[in-house]
Amino acid sequence: MKEFKLYDDENTLLMIPGPVPIHPRVLRALSRPIYGHRTNEFRALLTDIEKMLKPLFGTTGTVIMITGSGTAGMDAALRSFAKPGDKIISFVAGKFGERFYEIAKRISPNTVKVDIEWGKAIKPSIVEDALRKHRDTKIVTLTHNETSTGVLHPLPEISKIVKDYGALLIVDGITSVGGDYVKMDEWKVDAMVAGSQKCIGIPPGLAFVALRHEVEEYLESSTVSSSYYTDLRQYLDYWKNKNDLPFTGAVSLFYALYESLSLIHSEGLEKRILRHRRLAKITRRGIKSLGLEIFAEKGYESNTITAVRYPDNINDTDFRRIVRRYGVLIAGGQAHLKGKIFRIAHMNIIGEREILTALSVIELALRKLGFQVGSSGVQGAIDSILQFDI
Amino acid sequence: MKEFKLYDDENTLLMIPGPVPIHPRVLRALSRPIYGHRTNEFRALLTDIEKMLKPLFGTTGTVIMITGSGTAGMDAALRSFAKPGDKIISFVAGKFGERFYEIAKRISPNTVKVDIEWGKAIKPSIVEDALRKHRDTKIVTLTHNETSTGVLHPLPEISKIVKDYGALLIVDGITSVGGDYVKMDEWKVDAMVAGSQKCIGIPPGLAFVALRHEVEEYLESSTVSSSYYTDLRQYLDYWKNKNDLPFTGAVSLFYALYESLSLIHSEGLEKRILRHRRLAKITRRGIKSLGLEIFAEKGYESNTITAVRYPDNINDTDFRRIVRRYGVLIAGGQAHLKGKIFRIAHMNIIGEREILTALSVIELALRKLGFQVGSSGVQGAIDSILQFDI
Repeated sequence: MKEFKLYDDENTLLMIPGPVPIHPRVLRALSRPIYGHRTNEFRALLTDIEKMLKPLFGTTGTVIMITGSGTAGMDAALRSFAKPGDKIISFVAGKFGERFYEIAKRISPNTVKVDIEWGKAIKPSIVEDALRKHRDTKIVTLTHNETSTGVLHPLPEISKIVKDYGALLIVDGITSVGGDYVKMDEWKVDAMVAGSQKCIGIPPGLAFVALRHEVEEYLESSTVSSSYYTDLRQYLDYWKNKNDLPFTGAVSLFYALYESLSLIHSEGLEKRILRHRRLAKITRRGIKSLGLEIFAEKGYESNTITAVRYPDNINDTDFRRIVRRYGVLIAGGQAHLKGKIFRIAHMNIIGEREILTALSVIELALRKLGFQVGSSGVQGAIDSILQFDI
Repeated sequence: MKEFKLYDDENTLLMIPGPVPIHPRVLRALSRPIYGHRTNEFRALLTDIEKMLKPLFGTTGTVIMITGSGTAGMDAALRSFAKPGDKIISFVAGKFGERFYEIAKRISPNTVKVDIEWGKAIKPSIVEDALRKHRDTKIVTLTHNETSTGVLHPLPEISKIVKDYGALLIVDGITSVGGDYVKMDEWKVDAMVAGSQKCIGIPPGLAFVALRHEVEEYLESSTVSSSYYTDLRQYLDYWKNKNDLPFTGAVSLFYALYESLSLIHSEGLEKRILRHRRLAKITRRGIKSLGLEIFAEKGYESNTITAVRYPDNINDTDFRRIVRRYGVLIAGGQAHLKGKIFRIAHMNIIGEREILTALSVIELALRKLGFQVGSSGVQGAIDSILQFDI
């Protein structure tokens, strides 16, 4: 008999930046009997799914669906455009910017890393400086919403500059797509990556790469990719010619995806985004009420994840162990931010109720560890909720 | 397409007095393929279940399992012992005491109703007075934990008196069994009823009647019941002779029941009861912090449900609509208590997290309706949690 724990791994509120809480309707889709993946029925499902995905990226271009993690999507996006020797600039302001840089370096030794202090935004001027210095830049990589720091980088402004310099812009939108505004076509982002287990609301296992129309042709005519599994040209070829996937897809995840996208569009994408933005504001207000500080640079706070600076004398492991014991899973810091921040994700079907729950448990853990909270985080959050909801 | 609601009927925290939140492991058992109910396998399952049920009633006697609601259990228990003309005393201190009286009256016109103010406890002296007045009493009916008022009646003391007067004691334990102390053998309670959707932690659909050894024989030799489906003698006969049910049982509910009882015993019944008692204390502390009053008579507060008096100018419908909108379902008052109280259940897998969530949302709703809360209910609850958990 399994040892009893009230808040076991099936009864825990996930407020980590993916996996996220999943709607029961979506979970049920996962247990649908599996049908053949080379069938008209499955292709019809994929076609519906791809149509529903496009608006999440703000594009009329193709959305490639890869069975793999978000990193598979990043790898595919970059590797399908870049070849050894290409000048790539990777802007790194956190763990996931770093990952894009690692991928870029693996492809081309001619990769330039531009470091930005973690927690700060990648300002357009930084991008302009780098591009002015490296006029031969072919590709720029960027993280839209940096999950490790809770910063939303100013993508529209950055994109404008990248385009002025004639480079391709490949963006990791893993924790923005489906939860915040993404307008690839309008912003002229060439390729944008997303993962399934964040704001798209299903379990991990699928990655998406949306391609702007203009670059699809370019990709079709190129012979770049050094990869096989993550070569976007194969995916594009199969998609355009047969509405199919080149390799076996994770069938049940696609069933779940169809349900989740249906939910997303029944809420309405705009409403969904505004909900995420509202929840981020409520969270920040609650955190500040407790007397804690938001880690992200002011004015650039993420709408899907909030990073919070630990006060002195609060040990990360102890703190998150208590929060976990009371049934809420939040994230710690990564790399050099380990022990310095904790992170609360508010993605997918998270609502006011979950924010209040998380803030209550955080308040409990802080007090248990002897921290004198400013005032109740819940009271602050309620103040904020009441302002939104007259 | 269904209209989108974040907190729809699949994404709502149930804090009504049944149905209650169900552990995912138990929910999964509901989707087990159905097997034949007249098989050795199913009888073996029933046998295991009955063994696991006994401690919840504190009896070594038989626990009869009926497919039906809790009311079916009450009907079965009373109708199998009482016959027309029998003197029955029904103590009524709430909606469910009333129901037992309705059943009793239907069986025997010679039923005496003893009214106690709703919210107050049935004191032993009241019971003694009634029995002294009606020395020919054959059966006494009583609610152990009155769900409509949040009162836990002093069953051990009452039982002692009923036994002194030589009457049978039939008790509705629908919202106590599995969540609070029930010691039928020790207290000499003759028959005790429970339902599946309260502290036993599965969906509605099963009722249980536990019989003290001493009355089993009496029942076997009697020819009382005017019912067919709820005639306990048939159940007892099938059970004793073949470990089977007389009529087709709700097979999947028994699968779920097996899982839930396994969970209950893996936590440990004593620990589970102490958890319910702790959560009740935390809830009351939180409610008082908000500046609200507990409805139940002091010293007799239920450990599985807390009834709260509405402050002036808070409209029940408005209040509960807001609470519901933020994803928590709580109960209103019943009968003449409608609009006067609301009720928060803390049963089954409810823990500190859910209490904090409910209190947050209640605080939000009260403030939205213009009520000046005393202080944060969550802060009060956290104070209480910190006292329990050093």
